[in-house]
Amino acid sequence: MLSPGSLEIINTGTELLFGSVTNTLLPYLGQILFTLGWRIERQTTVPDGPAIERALREAFPRTEIILVTGGLGPTSDDITRDIVAEITGRRLRHDDAVFQKIKERFARRNLTMTSRIPRQALVPEGAVVLPNDFGTAPGLYLEKTATYPHLFLFPGPPRELRPMFETYALSILKKLSGLPGLAARIYKITGQGESFVEEAVGLELQALPALEIGYCARLGEVDLRLIGSESTLAQADTIVRRELASFLVSVDEQEIEEVIIRRLTDRKETLAVAESCTGGLVADRLTDVPGSSIVLLESVVAYSNEAKERALGVPRSLIESLGAVSSEVAAAMAEGVCRNNGANYGLATTGIAGPGGGTDQKPVGTIFLALAQAGKQTIVQREFFPTDRRSFKQIASQTALDLLRRTLAQKEKIRHGEH
Amino acid sequence: MLSPGSLEIINTGTELLFGSVTNTLLPYLGQILFTLGWRIERQTTVPDGPAIERALREAFPRTEIILVTGGLGPTSDDITRDIVAEITGRRLRHDDAVFQKIKERFARRNLTMTSRIPRQALVPEGAVVLPNDFGTAPGLYLEKTATYPHLFLFPGPPRELRPMFETYALSILKKLSGLPGLAARIYKITGQGESFVEEAVGLELQALPALEIGYCARLGEVDLRLIGSESTLAQADTIVRRELASFLVSVDEQEIEEVIIRRLTDRKETLAVAESCTGGLVADRLTDVPGSSIVLLESVVAYSNEAKERALGVPRSLIESLGAVSSEVAAAMAEGVCRNNGANYGLATTGIAGPGGGTDQKPVGTIFLALAQAGKQTIVQREFFPTDRRSFKQIASQTALDLLRRTLAQKEKIRHGEH
Repeated sequence: MLSPGSLEIINTGTELLFGSVTNTLLPYLGQILFTLGWRIERQTTVPDGPAIERALREAFPRTEIILVTGGLGPTSDDITRDIVAEITGRRLRHDDAVFQKIKERFARRNLTMTSRIPRQALVPEGAVVLPNDFGTAPGLYLEKTATYPHLFLFPGPPRELRPMFETYALSILKKLSGLPGLAARIYKITGQGESFVEEAVGLELQALPALEIGYCARLGEVDLRLIGSESTLAQADTIVRRELASFLVSVDEQEIEEVIIRRLTDRKETLAVAESCTGGLVADRLTDVPGSSIVLLESVVAYSNEAKERALGVPRSLIESLGAVSSEVAAAMAEGVCRNNGANYGLATTGIAGPGGGTDQKPVGTIFLALAQAGKQTIVQREFFPTDRRSFKQIASQTALDLLRRTLAQKEKIRHGEH
Repeated sequence: MLSPGSLEIINTGTELLFGSVTNTLLPYLGQILFTLGWRIERQTTVPDGPAIERALREAFPRTEIILVTGGLGPTSDDITRDIVAEITGRRLRHDDAVFQKIKERFARRNLTMTSRIPRQALVPEGAVVLPNDFGTAPGLYLEKTATYPHLFLFPGPPRELRPMFETYALSILKKLSGLPGLAARIYKITGQGESFVEEAVGLELQALPALEIGYCARLGEVDLRLIGSESTLAQADTIVRRELASFLVSVDEQEIEEVIIRRLTDRKETLAVAESCTGGLVADRLTDVPGSSIVLLESVVAYSNEAKERALGVPRSLIESLGAVSSEVAAAMAEGVCRNNGANYGLATTGIAGPGGGTDQKPVGTIFLALAQAGKQTIVQREFFPTDRRSFKQIASQTALDLLRRTLAQKEKIRHGEH
């Protein structure tokens, strides 16, 4: 069993337990901390209030570092600062440098200071202030003593926490020793389930020394996670690539959209997209990638039949005779958007996301994907993903992107003479 | 202090602590459980392995119900079932009904059964099986005894857990008494920060009896969460609507996109969207709403200048003289997509998401939003959201949607003679 430096996270906030907010801080912190050699041994979410104190006291003897998020804001339910001052026995003092920074921020934005704002300038004595460049409440760091571990307090909003963590907390964390020499590799695999993946590589990987293996099924993909020494990971890499090559999207968490944008950029090729049932999600994912504007010329979300006809040149007769959800219409959409933009590739989706609109022949979950290629045969693929509307859109966009990814990978192979 | 039935959630899975997966189960469960009168008093995430046992044993004396997610799958790191059998002192037995269901599922999908699959048919003696209609591993329910609380075990993938929870677990949970008679209301407020919201309504709300008040700042919006008796909530409602009317998007967690689709559907009006910097996210959000296909005719993600010209009719001269990121181009995009579709409204975004592409006059974060209205003056709004690319897209899409929402709300007021 590998046991690197131990660390816990306590997320505070009733909203996290109440269903109104998703915890995006945990995956963010988990990823960065691992690369520093720290493993999160436990994460706890507690509501605003006295539960914060109980969770902190329980964690004190278990761990070397605690990161706490939330409860530093101006409103009356923000009490993390007070609780930490109390249980560490430190007085809260008004920090004028912090207060001036808050005042300037309000002046710059022409906002009026409400009476609650100055609370955010209270700092436990001896604590290091972690400046907040994107909000008012600063973060705080209290060094380990005999009675409590290293304590980091961060504001809850991700857009404030992230820059604060990277600019001011990382350098402190780097000085506290994690466990170096251990690396992780995550393989993104698409088009197969997790038991297939384990069947393909599990036995061989288990035979390698001190390798931690994890499988995680996600919408439309499986993550295979390996943790071990660099030399073990190199051996594992050979096995994974040999057995799972054609399903392998990326190593080290590159998303499929990043893989596609990078490949197209390298090839100096362009893409246009025509979406019906994915409703803009394919474009949204692609445009999350910096630099995507060079590659992605246009995406048409042609929800109405009229838009399919006018904006994509899909013949009305085709829609009337075969229906908008058909392989022929998918192909015509892909070819239309490809031609309109003079793009190298046109990618299209048309299907029934539900909950309404299904028929016996084409039940909810039916989707046709098409990839047009300038001067070559259009590829059409029929799939069936019977699930809720959002999951449908996610799996559908993943499968559409994978159709393009596989086609590009095939071309690379041919170029390198591996056919 | 209100104290309804206490319940804890334990999410298992190294991937949750490792940064590769976001916990979407918690908000899902939190929302449903609250309506049943249950409050999640604590949520814990532990890695696969012995930490599951420690977390369970610690929670046993604290709570009446524990929901555990994850670790029921076929791979070697899935050990939740074994741990629970051990600490509750129940033997695992092969359940043939479960096994037949798994076999049928594999046959129906033409998948080969791997050797690890049958593990999922092991059931602790006396446990109730919660069938999995969207995957192989069933859930399990063990009734409370003198030594442990009610235990529910669910598979980790949300697409399996959700239908299982609603179809098979809810009816059991409803029989275990939560605390009825308490209700919650969440107000979504956009265009103002959380301290503004507290300043506006905080004092008056605090004067109401036994009302729990929470504020949560999110990207582009603030959630005001009130918990109390129905009569207290009715009084609070009057206060909130009086003070925050024009910033109020919805009550009870309706997203802004749902509000828009519903309003447009009621008004029998249509919408077309032209996106540049939001890259499809406005369309993606709108198309998440069932029934949006009646209202949303088309969204053009016109990333290239050529597409802005061809698909939206933006004059090349305008782009060349003023730049694609300008109020004039935003207006021309909105008007173009509105005209092309014969829609009632055309909504457009153009801006600089970054990290590259900024200038002194128009730094990264600059955005122009435009709303064209058939036969009326186009509204243009300039905003500045200096943040990372994904957050920029989110705030930008929120602000664009809010421009449309406010315009629709204004029309309703005029129709009802409230001008």
